[in-house]
Amino acid sequence: MAAANLIDGRAIAAQIQSELVARVAVLKSAGVIPGLAFVRVGEDPASKVYVGRKEKACAELGIVSETHLLPQAATEVELLALIAKLNATSHLHGILVQAPLPKQICESVIFSTVLPTKDVDGFHPVNVGKLMLGDHTGFRPCTPAGVVELLIRSGVKTEGAEVVVLGRGNIVGKPMAAMLCQKGQAANSTVTICHSATRDIKAHCLRADIIVAAMGVAEFLKADMVKPGAVIMDVGVNRVPDATSKTGTKLVGDVDFANVQPIAGRITPNPGGVGPMTIAMLLQNTVHAAELKIKS
Amino acid sequence: MAAANLIDGRAIAAQIQSELVARVAVLKSAGVIPGLAFVRVGEDPASKVYVGRKEKACAELGIVSETHLLPQAATEVELLALIAKLNATSHLHGILVQAPLPKQICESVIFSTVLPTKDVDGFHPVNVGKLMLGDHTGFRPCTPAGVVELLIRSGVKTEGAEVVVLGRGNIVGKPMAAMLCQKGQAANSTVTICHSATRDIKAHCLRADIIVAAMGVAEFLKADMVKPGAVIMDVGVNRVPDATSKTGTKLVGDVDFANVQPIAGRITPNPGGVGPMTIAMLLQNTVHAAELKIKS
Repeated sequence: MAAANLIDGRAIAAQIQSELVARVAVLKSAGVIPGLAFVRVGEDPASKVYVGRKEKACAELGIVSETHLLPQAATEVELLALIAKLNATSHLHGILVQAPLPKQICESVIFSTVLPTKDVDGFHPVNVGKLMLGDHTGFRPCTPAGVVELLIRSGVKTEGAEVVVLGRGNIVGKPMAAMLCQKGQAANSTVTICHSATRDIKAHCLRADIIVAAMGVAEFLKADMVKPGAVIMDVGVNRVPDATSKTGTKLVGDVDFANVQPIAGRITPNPGGVGPMTIAMLLQNTVHAAELKIKS
Repeated sequence: MAAANLIDGRAIAAQIQSELVARVAVLKSAGVIPGLAFVRVGEDPASKVYVGRKEKACAELGIVSETHLLPQAATEVELLALIAKLNATSHLHGILVQAPLPKQICESVIFSTVLPTKDVDGFHPVNVGKLMLGDHTGFRPCTPAGVVELLIRSGVKTEGAEVVVLGRGNIVGKPMAAMLCQKGQAANSTVTICHSATRDIKAHCLRADIIVAAMGVAEFLKADMVKPGAVIMDVGVNRVPDATSKTGTKLVGDVDFANVQPIAGRITPNPGGVGPMTIAMLLQNTVHAAELKIKS
C-alpha cells in the first residue's frame, strides 16, 4: 500500500504528536501535567478498543489519564453525578465520554453537561455553536479537525474547491461542512452535504474535487462515482463479514479503496488514515485545555 | 405584482401572528404578559426602522416591549451591564440587541451574554449549537426560520430537493443550510452553500430546485442563473441609487426580481416576502420564551 497517492495518517498523526511534546514540556515546567478523564458505560467492545488506544497515546505523550467505568445498567443520574465530579476536579483538563451510551441515557444531555472548557471532544452545544459561528475560542470535534489537518499537511488546496461531504451526522458530517465552507485557511470550499435523502449522490460525487466519506456504509463510494484526480478522505469504520479472518469479520471504510485508489489524486488508507488523526486531535485539544487553564 | 407564483410573506406573517393571538391569551389568563427588550446602540437609520417595526408588531399582538438606547460611543462594558440587568429582569422573556453595533463593541461577546433562554434572536452559541445538532429545545434564528415557514405554508416540497444557499453569513446562510439539510419536516434537502470563493455559482444555481439568496449583493441572481420552475427565496436588503425616488435611493433584494419572476416556480417579492416573516418569527420566539418560563 505504498502507492504515491496515499495520505499517511499514521505519519502525520505522529508528526503532530511530536510537536505536542514541546508544549507538554512547557506545561510541566510550569507545574501542570495535562489530565484527561475517560468515561465508559458498559462493555461495548469497540468503545473498549477506542478508549484503550487513546489511553496509550496519552501515556506516550505524558498526559495523565484516568478511566471511569460505569456498568451497562447505570442511570443517567449516576453518569451526571460522575461528570459533575470530573468537572470539579482541577487536575483534569479534559473529559471524554465515549459514545455510544446505553439507551437509558440521553447522549445530548450528557454532552451538554461536560464543562465547555473541558469538552475536548467538541460535542457541547457551546463549542458546536462557536464552530459554526467561526469563533475559534472553542474546541473543534476531533475527527473533522483531523481531516482538515490531513488536507493542510498533504498540501491539498481547499480554496474554491468543490467538496462533497457524504453524511450529515453530528460527529463528522455537519461540523466537517461547517469547517470547510467558512473563510480562512484550509477552508473556503464550496460544500455540498449529501445524505440518505439525496436524489443523485453519484452526480454530486462526480463533480467533487474533495470527497469526505462519512455515511457509515461499508465501501459506499465506488470508482464510478469519483472524478479522476479527486482527493478522497475516508472516515468510515464498518465491520463486515470476512470468511478469511479468524474473527469472521474485518473492518472497512466507506470507500471501495481497492478500486477508487487507482483513480484518486490523493486518498487516505483505512485503517491508517483518518483514525490516527482523531487521536492526535484529542491530544492536541487536551494540551490546549491545559494551556488555557494556566492562562486563566 | 399579483402574479400567481408569488409567495406572499405579508399574508403568511399575518396568519402566523393571528395564530399567536390565542397563545398570548392563554399566557395572559395565567397572569403572564410576554415581555421583550430591544437594545439599540447609536443612531444607525436602518436599525431604527427595524426596531420600530418590531415594536409595532409587539404592540399589535399584546407583547409588552421596551427599548433601551445607548449612545454611539457606549463601551462594551456599558452594554454588558445593560444586558446583565435585562437578563435579571423577570418580566422580560426576550432580549434583542439590534445589529450592527459600533466598532468598539464585539458582537459575538454581546450575543454570548444574552441568557440563552431569553435569546429570541437565536444568536447565542448554545442556540446555534443546538440548531446544528438537531436539538429542538433552542431558539432558531428568525430569518432562516421564516424562510422555512414560507416554504411549508407555500407547499414547497424540500424532501430530496437540491437547495443552493447563496451566502455563508452567521445570521442567514449557515443556519439556513443547517436547517434544510437535517432530517425532519421542511428539511431533508441536499444543500450546497455558495459564497465569494465559489468557482462557478451559476452552474450550482442552474441545477437548484430552491435558491435562498442571502449574499447581500443587489440583484445578484439573474434570470440566466435560474432553472425554470425553481423556487426563489430572496433574503437580501440592499440600498441602491435610484434617481426617480425622492431619497435618491431604493431598496432591492439579492434577486433580479423583474427578470427572474417570469421563470421561477414560486418566488418571494422583496419587500413583502422574507422580511415580514423575520418579525413573525421574533414574535413566535418571544411567545415561546414566555411559555417556557411558565413551565419552568
